[in-house]
Amino acid sequence: MSKDKDRSAQMDKIVALCKRKGFIFQNSEIYGGQNGFWDYGPLGVELKRNVREAWWQDMVNMHDPLDAPEGAPDKFQMTGVETSIIMHPQVWKASGHFDLFSDMMQTCRQCKKLFRADHVWEMIEESEWFQSLAKECGVAFGTQLATIDSAAILQWAKAKKQGRRLAPGLAVVRNPEVTLSWLAEHQQSQPNQPLSAVDLLRYLATEQKNQTGLQTPCPNCGGDLTEPRHFNLMFETHTGALQSDDNKAFLRPETAQGIFVNFKNVVDSSRVKIPFGVAQIGKSFRNEITPRNFTFRSREFEQMEIEFFCHPDTSPQWYKYWRDRRFAWYTSLGIGNERLTLRDHDADELSHYSVGTADIEYQFPFMAEGEFGELEGIAHRGDFDLRSHMEGKLQAKDGKLEVQLDEHGQPKWRGSGKDLTYFDDQAKERFTPHVIEPSAGADRATLAFICEAYYEDEQPDDKGNMQSRTVMRFHPRLAPIKVAVLPLIKKAGMPEKAKELFRNLKSAGIAAQYDEQSAIGRRYRRQDEIGTPWCVTIDGQTVEEDNTVTLRDRDSLEQVRLPMDEVVNEISNRLRST
Amino acid sequence: MSKDKDRSAQMDKIVALCKRKGFIFQNSEIYGGQNGFWDYGPLGVELKRNVREAWWQDMVNMHDPLDAPEGAPDKFQMTGVETSIIMHPQVWKASGHFDLFSDMMQTCRQCKKLFRADHVWEMIEESEWFQSLAKECGVAFGTQLATIDSAAILQWAKAKKQGRRLAPGLAVVRNPEVTLSWLAEHQQSQPNQPLSAVDLLRYLATEQKNQTGLQTPCPNCGGDLTEPRHFNLMFETHTGALQSDDNKAFLRPETAQGIFVNFKNVVDSSRVKIPFGVAQIGKSFRNEITPRNFTFRSREFEQMEIEFFCHPDTSPQWYKYWRDRRFAWYTSLGIGNERLTLRDHDADELSHYSVGTADIEYQFPFMAEGEFGELEGIAHRGDFDLRSHMEGKLQAKDGKLEVQLDEHGQPKWRGSGKDLTYFDDQAKERFTPHVIEPSAGADRATLAFICEAYYEDEQPDDKGNMQSRTVMRFHPRLAPIKVAVLPLIKKAGMPEKAKELFRNLKSAGIAAQYDEQSAIGRRYRRQDEIGTPWCVTIDGQTVEEDNTVTLRDRDSLEQVRLPMDEVVNEISNRLRST
Repeated sequence: MSKDKDRSAQMDKIVALCKRKGFIFQNSEIYGGQNGFWDYGPLGVELKRNVREAWWQDMVNMHDPLDAPEGAPDKFQMTGVETSIIMHPQVWKASGHFDLFSDMMQTCRQCKKLFRADHVWEMIEESEWFQSLAKECGVAFGTQLATIDSAAILQWAKAKKQGRRLAPGLAVVRNPEVTLSWLAEHQQSQPNQPLSAVDLLRYLATEQKNQTGLQTPCPNCGGDLTEPRHFNLMFETHTGALQSDDNKAFLRPETAQGIFVNFKNVVDSSRVKIPFGVAQIGKSFRNEITPRNFTFRSREFEQMEIEFFCHPDTSPQWYKYWRDRRFAWYTSLGIGNERLTLRDHDADELSHYSVGTADIEYQFPFMAEGEFGELEGIAHRGDFDLRSHMEGKLQAKDGKLEVQLDEHGQPKWRGSGKDLTYFDDQAKERFTPHVIEPSAGADRATLAFICEAYYEDEQPDDKGNMQSRTVMRFHPRLAPIKVAVLPLIKKAGMPEKAKELFRNLKSAGIAAQYDEQSAIGRRYRRQDEIGTPWCVTIDGQTVEEDNTVTLRDRDSLEQVRLPMDEVVNEISNRLRST
Repeated sequence: MSKDKDRSAQMDKIVALCKRKGFIFQNSEIYGGQNGFWDYGPLGVELKRNVREAWWQDMVNMHDPLDAPEGAPDKFQMTGVETSIIMHPQVWKASGHFDLFSDMMQTCRQCKKLFRADHVWEMIEESEWFQSLAKECGVAFGTQLATIDSAAILQWAKAKKQGRRLAPGLAVVRNPEVTLSWLAEHQQSQPNQPLSAVDLLRYLATEQKNQTGLQTPCPNCGGDLTEPRHFNLMFETHTGALQSDDNKAFLRPETAQGIFVNFKNVVDSSRVKIPFGVAQIGKSFRNEITPRNFTFRSREFEQMEIEFFCHPDTSPQWYKYWRDRRFAWYTSLGIGNERLTLRDHDADELSHYSVGTADIEYQFPFMAEGEFGELEGIAHRGDFDLRSHMEGKLQAKDGKLEVQLDEHGQPKWRGSGKDLTYFDDQAKERFTPHVIEPSAGADRATLAFICEAYYEDEQPDDKGNMQSRTVMRFHPRLAPIKVAVLPLIKKAGMPEKAKELFRNLKSAGIAAQYDEQSAIGRRYRRQDEIGTPWCVTIDGQTVEEDNTVTLRDRDSLEQVRLPMDEVVNEISNRLRST
């Protein structure tokens, strides 16, 4: 618990730094903000651009199609597309999103608020009313309560600043005597049997047990929640001027479908041969009921997805290749192995057509010790997607995929009817390709890189006193600014020299910043806080003696002296070799 | 007219090439497509990435904040943001989009189709029914019709395959005798007065002139259109689970507002001082009634916008600077001066608070000879936007901007109430900055670069016969592939050499393609058609004699011989110097 508190305090500091330094702002903040929407500030946009660029370079542009990379079953080609956010509505019917892309949701009968069913108990635990109840009446999650202090509960329920203010909707607050009588009845019928906190809370939320059964309390007001109902997560809109069912459209909940429906176009236009991958970066939208954890679960987010098309026989090997390769990508950009896991889904979690699905997860500071949050999923999807867009919405039946029929025996949602099979002209074989899908979140990756980079230590200031220092230890490829150029003082020819170097760095395409304001120690700390890997300082020796400068490393704090005209090369080399 | 036909035929060829070579596909094509939505294919995505990257590099990353660039009144800083597509709905109320961002629209009373009022006559002229009527009855736009051949019109209206099939809604088809009687009456009352084609068509669309006045015919079926009505172009959606007016949200119709509402955040977090610019690239959405002209007018599109904040006194100079600088950007990337114009809005087109607005326009082939389409607008916006987000929706009154009030004398739409003024700590002066807005379309720029690049000539093939050649003469910075590496034949050690060079180019970050399929002449033409500026060929001399290769230029067709190990440097230098 105290470790979790440390983690949560650290997350608060990260969020504050993100705002203070211009990484991430709440969207529409001056209007009170919008839940689940975030903006990237001046440094954030460069960081996120670097994340996207690293992914696109590593996956697409720098890929060598002439040889099999280490661990790959064969050589392969990589290419990209950029498809629109609003697609034909039939795409989502055939893909299954229209029917199935939903969360179970519960509404409070008292305050009318909505909650994701699988988040309710966690939110109750975090709620103000539960914290108060727990304190006053000795209730805690995860324990069995041998004795129930009904008198304390009654007092809490009736107290103006406790139950009545914090949980006005809770049955035991609205009607304490009747509610507690059900609890008493239970206690009498099953004496000596301990009660879990969850069960106790369900009793306290239930006024008329005989009619309704036990209820679940609302995390907000304590009121009773409806049964869980499906709620589709796709944002709806309409194209054209009239708003009718005929022109209803959806904001894509994933970029993947844009690749599937263009499979034939890509094959026909670009001379790729199977195996090949198609990459896409773009925004997706999910109307999350409870967006939270900073940018981790937001309603508008950016994905980096690959659909890799291969022969069914080799698809298990390709699955394994992508799973390992994508894990290695995060560590190559500085995520520590100890905070990253590769979790294979159990057999019973898998769709029956899938050979495997694995999640790459990161231990975000907003999670409890030992818990991880998904950064990327790598899924073996078989031929499910291409077949759906050929034949119509598929469902599993008797271990096979078949088209789902409506009550009249007609296909419930038709596919395109177009041929999306592939003909291998070497092997003279026609088949429906299998698909491996590494699906990463650009905002989640960015957030993980931010959390991983955050670091505090103590360093002596200009006078030798120890001062706490915040450092963003970004991988140099990701750092928004690669190098700061600092004249030691604002005179004696130093600024002129420094500006000359600054311009040479910019001309070489290196993101540089020039800063001559305030004492040198403060300027170093300013660069540390935004994650600049290197600082170059121009001092008296540069101007008066030998044209050498100092190059300071953000992490080791080591300073080396080198000729000023070697700086551009040195920084370029360091960037290349990281 | 024949020149326009040539232009239109050329546009058809460009659209076909875009699909065939994987630049641009119709979105959701396998499902019949979606009007106004487009996807970028494997080459298109790299082209568009290069357009965006050229803009961001030239405007933000390579900008030197230490000196005033040529033509600029002062030095200035440039930075960026990336804000979300769905913003707080109040943003659009304060900005005026909620009330005013609309097109005038007309609906057909017969077929119920919708049309933009300002497109109707153009669409009528292009319609099948008008073409048929024009042919049979000698009607043409732009001429005055001295005599009206009522007999021919009657015959056309009654003919099964003419009026009755093509324009079933047209009044003269539904009720020929009554309709023509109004026309005859007019002719009698004003003999010898010629009639324009527009007037004639309005008579043919009018059954009960006394009751309705003259009607406008529907471009689709000839039926009569309603009066023009306002239609808001913002796509609507809802955030959260319930669909009510309380949680109605909009897809942004421009990226600009994301910058304005973050003005304070950027100033507070990034140490910029006025004058400075904030750049943003991102998707915007407009629910166009009649999307058309390929990607030119689409419903989902990408913008590249800068909001440049400056002191009111110097804003006219900054306006002029940005206007000229943005024009020069297009020519620096290869757009010919003769097809690009900078059109200053007339004084009566300007908002009264604006010193000036200019459009950069390109002569797209889908437009008539001498007509131009907007690529970018540069607007002097005064303090309109920041003040709106402070005070509420503004309107012009007596030459001043003031908050618009509702019927109760209350602000119609409130602003944020936050202070968005700026304090200049050198001059000790507080003011509301003025804004210069260069607003470019990424898709329109991409389309202009595609149209500009398209070129046909004749070149001898391998046997010396003249063959037509299609070349995409992209500027090297924009070309999706910079260099192709081609072994002359598939043996004698040439592929090995070529692959070695290919890998060296890739390692240097140069987009290269390796191709060993088919005759060398055909491979050259393949690269010409996708706009690759340079081809390197490895031949017998490379392997057997001196390790030299030929380097062929796409445009001049010049071939030079150089040592293979100089190729990477040579290409890098050529890329840098273009």
